[in-house]
Amino acid sequence: MINFEASTASDCAGRSGTLKTEHGDVPTPLFMPVGTAGTVKGLTPDQLSSAGVRMLLANTYHLHLRPGVGCIESLGGLHSFMAWDGPVLTDSGGYQVFSLGKNVKVDEAGAVFRSHIDGSKVHFTPESVARTQRALGVDVAMVLDVVTGNGSDRRAAESAAARTLRWAVRSRELPIDHQPGATFGIMQGGLFEDIRRENAEGLLELDFPGYAVGGLSVGEEREKTMHMAEYSVGLLPADKPRYMMGMGTPEDLVALCGMGYDMFDCVLPTRNARNCTLFTSRGVVAIRNSRYADDPDPVDPRCSCYTCSNFSAAYLNHLAKRHEMLGATLASLHNVAFYQNLVEEIRGALALGTYGEFADNFFARYRGEK
Amino acid sequence: MINFEASTASDCAGRSGTLKTEHGDVPTPLFMPVGTAGTVKGLTPDQLSSAGVRMLLANTYHLHLRPGVGCIESLGGLHSFMAWDGPVLTDSGGYQVFSLGKNVKVDEAGAVFRSHIDGSKVHFTPESVARTQRALGVDVAMVLDVVTGNGSDRRAAESAAARTLRWAVRSRELPIDHQPGATFGIMQGGLFEDIRRENAEGLLELDFPGYAVGGLSVGEEREKTMHMAEYSVGLLPADKPRYMMGMGTPEDLVALCGMGYDMFDCVLPTRNARNCTLFTSRGVVAIRNSRYADDPDPVDPRCSCYTCSNFSAAYLNHLAKRHEMLGATLASLHNVAFYQNLVEEIRGALALGTYGEFADNFFARYRGEK
Repeated sequence: MINFEASTASDCAGRSGTLKTEHGDVPTPLFMPVGTAGTVKGLTPDQLSSAGVRMLLANTYHLHLRPGVGCIESLGGLHSFMAWDGPVLTDSGGYQVFSLGKNVKVDEAGAVFRSHIDGSKVHFTPESVARTQRALGVDVAMVLDVVTGNGSDRRAAESAAARTLRWAVRSRELPIDHQPGATFGIMQGGLFEDIRRENAEGLLELDFPGYAVGGLSVGEEREKTMHMAEYSVGLLPADKPRYMMGMGTPEDLVALCGMGYDMFDCVLPTRNARNCTLFTSRGVVAIRNSRYADDPDPVDPRCSCYTCSNFSAAYLNHLAKRHEMLGATLASLHNVAFYQNLVEEIRGALALGTYGEFADNFFARYRGEK
Repeated sequence: MINFEASTASDCAGRSGTLKTEHGDVPTPLFMPVGTAGTVKGLTPDQLSSAGVRMLLANTYHLHLRPGVGCIESLGGLHSFMAWDGPVLTDSGGYQVFSLGKNVKVDEAGAVFRSHIDGSKVHFTPESVARTQRALGVDVAMVLDVVTGNGSDRRAAESAAARTLRWAVRSRELPIDHQPGATFGIMQGGLFEDIRRENAEGLLELDFPGYAVGGLSVGEEREKTMHMAEYSVGLLPADKPRYMMGMGTPEDLVALCGMGYDMFDCVLPTRNARNCTLFTSRGVVAIRNSRYADDPDPVDPRCSCYTCSNFSAAYLNHLAKRHEMLGATLASLHNVAFYQNLVEEIRGALALGTYGEFADNFFARYRGEK
């Protein structure tokens, strides 16, 4: 149900390619804005398209609790519900469920917790999240994984990885007609190379159409994240899409694309926009800062998004100071467009074999050295 | 700097016409969404245009305090600041200033109050608000008027109307090159026919290019408002645009257009949208109500706006329950489009001489009798 083609760059391990789905082809590397509850906060589907977005992520956990998968199914599925024609990936809810901490009971069968909406008991199992994602009608589904908060606890990492693998087996054993879209496996293993290697070997035997790396960037130092990201990507097959979950900053993306990751999602562009923080080619801009109060230029002169084409930094500063809704909208639009432009530039450099030069230029400009 | 043409309907006192401005022609009756601080809350200029909006209102008071008229002037004026190509009308700040109650000192010269932003002393005079509106570069400016909270206090109404007239004289006496856009006079007089008549006679001698009726719908019974609105409009010349300030509901618009008013502004479509209330051809919809939780139909089947063309009432219900920003955006878009469609239908019926029939049908449908 998906197809993936990619060629590795001549000057690094990164690749440029295409993810083909039933809702259209998406050039890779690709970045998915986060549409938690079936909406990328503050942006219409039209605005997302005009910002260059091709594929979205939504959260199984949130949609399951409200409005409920039965509601979405009766309205024609998630695409129709949120009026998004492009492909959609849903996470499995693993990350959200395990974020509940003491409020979730986990055993080999799955996880049990109470809905924060109505207090009802909710069971998440590898089979139930598959059913849910199938009912949502998504293009890419994720297996239920076990996430540990602390990647440096060896016993926890080991047991999480092992259970994630056993749950992956159960997902894979579902009858074909019970399986949602193309389901990706998720590698866990904390900050331990041997656990990740063993976990990857087990996952690869299940021959998933794509693989994600989970459990990184959960509080550890960035250097450790990046080391483990690079180690992990090398364990995954070259002919399948490789998805780094939940990361990251523009700098992360440039680094991770150079390692050979193909897919990303992150709340940063929209969340930071609502906090008046804009990503630009010259680094991060806190638009409420009074240095922008009279600035007639767009916030990023290299950007051609709707916000930068029409509005001055001074106008954005004015909206931010007044907490105007339009300020959050225009900042979200810009940040999402910035991320899409970035992956487009990354793709171009990977295809041309000029990634080293591109990355050097990007970092120099982004860090204000240029 | 503006031009106005209108023909009176064959079956009522309403007129259909055109207001010609330097930023384009606008068919009348026209409705201006309120862009208080240089932004119609939550909507981009593109979204406003796509909802059929032709002309906006902005508030001199708010823009004067922040970002300040010097800032806007240096950025090329209000149109450029907010990236709006169509005509803009600014109120004079009278209403806002007099809403400050005890915190404003008013004498014959003007009003003095402290900025709520930085505590600095601010003077509003007929001359200063003219200068401000000129610097903003608006198409239609309003004279500074004296607003009384209570229209049924005869002495207050008399003195407010008299001072408003003296201030109108001072505005009109400004040298031509100190005058902003086309400046409209404002009639006051509370709920007293004789005061309004006298006030209108004085204003008409000043030969303004347009006239507004102020001081209505400030708390009095709707019947009194409507009676005074009808009485007042008859005092104004037929060859000038007649502007009813700050009103109203869809029902108000249908009634007032039938009396011969040409221009309207109101915060209702956007404010109510943010409170999850949508105007529809079948009346007002509180979209958070659980009766919409599974409703696959658009919130108004007669509407072809972006919201109604793409999203179910169930999706809007979901967004509203989750307090999602997109819920406010889509509701604002719909409400603004609903108002624009309404004035377009009104224009059509006035032009055809079928206004009575149109109004009967509208009220029957809107009140759920049809």
